[in-house]
Amino acid sequence: MPINNPIDFAASCPLPIQEYSHVMLAHGGGGRLTHRLIETMFVPAFSNPLLAARHDGATFSVNKSRLAFTTDSYVVHPLFFPGGDIGTLAINGTVNDLAMCGARPLYLSAGFILEEGLAMETLWAVVQSMRQAANEARVQLVTGDTKVVEKGKADGIFINTAGVGLIEHNLSISPASVRTGDAILVSGDLGRHGIAIMAQREGLSFETTIESDCAPLAEPVLSLIRGGIEANCLRDLTRGGLASVLVEIAEAAGVQIHIDENAIPVREDVRGACEILGFDPLYLPSEGRFVLFVPASNADRALGILNSHPLTQGSCLIGRVAAASSPLVVMRSTIGGTRIIDMLSGEQLPRIC
Amino acid sequence: MPINNPIDFAASCPLPIQEYSHVMLAHGGGGRLTHRLIETMFVPAFSNPLLAARHDGATFSVNKSRLAFTTDSYVVHPLFFPGGDIGTLAINGTVNDLAMCGARPLYLSAGFILEEGLAMETLWAVVQSMRQAANEARVQLVTGDTKVVEKGKADGIFINTAGVGLIEHNLSISPASVRTGDAILVSGDLGRHGIAIMAQREGLSFETTIESDCAPLAEPVLSLIRGGIEANCLRDLTRGGLASVLVEIAEAAGVQIHIDENAIPVREDVRGACEILGFDPLYLPSEGRFVLFVPASNADRALGILNSHPLTQGSCLIGRVAAASSPLVVMRSTIGGTRIIDMLSGEQLPRIC
Repeated sequence: MPINNPIDFAASCPLPIQEYSHVMLAHGGGGRLTHRLIETMFVPAFSNPLLAARHDGATFSVNKSRLAFTTDSYVVHPLFFPGGDIGTLAINGTVNDLAMCGARPLYLSAGFILEEGLAMETLWAVVQSMRQAANEARVQLVTGDTKVVEKGKADGIFINTAGVGLIEHNLSISPASVRTGDAILVSGDLGRHGIAIMAQREGLSFETTIESDCAPLAEPVLSLIRGGIEANCLRDLTRGGLASVLVEIAEAAGVQIHIDENAIPVREDVRGACEILGFDPLYLPSEGRFVLFVPASNADRALGILNSHPLTQGSCLIGRVAAASSPLVVMRSTIGGTRIIDMLSGEQLPRIC
Repeated sequence: MPINNPIDFAASCPLPIQEYSHVMLAHGGGGRLTHRLIETMFVPAFSNPLLAARHDGATFSVNKSRLAFTTDSYVVHPLFFPGGDIGTLAINGTVNDLAMCGARPLYLSAGFILEEGLAMETLWAVVQSMRQAANEARVQLVTGDTKVVEKGKADGIFINTAGVGLIEHNLSISPASVRTGDAILVSGDLGRHGIAIMAQREGLSFETTIESDCAPLAEPVLSLIRGGIEANCLRDLTRGGLASVLVEIAEAAGVQIHIDENAIPVREDVRGACEILGFDPLYLPSEGRFVLFVPASNADRALGILNSHPLTQGSCLIGRVAAASSPLVVMRSTIGGTRIIDMLSGEQLPRIC
């Protein structure tokens, strides 16, 4: 490998290279290894306060406007699955990252990496899905790029979308705003996206098809904010699932999080599929669900707003934030015991988004 | 291929599918096929005035601020080449697209798609290059994403960067602003990036190593604007080279472009390499060069400003814009004949950025 400016890697890179000398699938899984890669490589390299906020997107002011800016690449396999495809995912995923910053999504970019030999019909279908999803989420796709690589050097279609949104309130929505006593809500049943992908990938069929929950979340989030809800932190429950998200927030906020397994909404068919496939619903990705931290006094009103919106019906309270000497996520199990929750480790669900 | 919402592709897709039923490398080459894919698939699907401007980025107002927003994916092969690597390219390429909108680059996002098994040392080297390039271009990388795909499903590292910039003037920089009589300038010698990549890829060595011209162009462009130059159109000379860019602008502006082959700056070593490798310098990509359309009365002053900046020394006048019944690019050759210039067709230089 010809590196122009050779760097003493072992001396300069803070990653424990003895352990992780090569990129593994789990580095992209949204769990512990993804977290470690970000913390030890990307955050120090590009050191700046915006990146250090460790949020779903960056927020900054330009003149007097507060903007949010975010990006995600989509490498989901297979490209088409019950309830969506890589195109719907690429629009909704980035719309949702803007929503999690409390921003109204305005404009999206799209960068396509196509594999030589891809059927033009497949690309066309994906582009139509993107168009439809963008219309539904009320965003405009305004700039783009297309690259093609040789057959065997990619896998059909990879899409990156970045998004710009406008923040029209004075809330500071971030892990740093989470407070002891906050109520923790989720916006509906968990894990359907993960099961939809895995079932499609493995050729499994259940009694009824489990469809991805992929959906644009800006409308319900903006309804909360317009309704005066003090949203302290918002996070969509994608890679790594509820468990990884809660651990990340607990660590970033320096708090203890207590959740109740009985309160976590998982559909019976999803629970059944988890048993067959050997998954824990706590780590399953959803692409249309988020977790919300609000002052306890706001919880009922927030649930009222969410449950009146079609995309967030089934929202419920799952736990609360407690003071902590060390950050921790603790779950009271269905049988009354307690269990300490860690981030996803290993590669439970590669390429689910 | 299980498509959820089957679409009558043949009836709905405006591409001539008999001819192009599959994606070919040339669809990503920046020439005629890329152009056709954009015009017949992406622009109609996402139909909006910003996309229809066919510029290097979208420009729009948020409250009273004019912003530019752009994206590019980088799939260059090999990852490291004389004068740069995929990391420098990923920063400078997007910085330059913002500069071509006349914007001051502010913030960048980065989306990594990594192949399982990539040496962590390689990623570290690329990240260090990105850090250095971002510092030199005075932009902050503020948000990012990492995905990992299985070994054999990508090629080492693909990077997408998107960028947000601020437009601090009232010029309308776009093909639509090009006027009959405009002078056409280029910001230095052409084609070094293309030759650097091809020589590295093919294992060729010349008497002296030809290094990529990859460089951030925001500073010289902002100097022009601060200097009162009426920049009607700016475009960086990447995929497809000078020829493809001029044809695209001629078609978008509905003008005839006359250039003089004798005036086009190409270094002797690049010209020699072109002869050996069978390339036409007009179609070679540069990653640190741009073409500038200005009123003829501004030309000398613009050249003065550009030639006083280290990254754009060697800028010169190469032609002018003429009225036309049909858009065309005409070149007076070194031997005095005239030649009609078309966009790059086929796949002269796949994966050069």
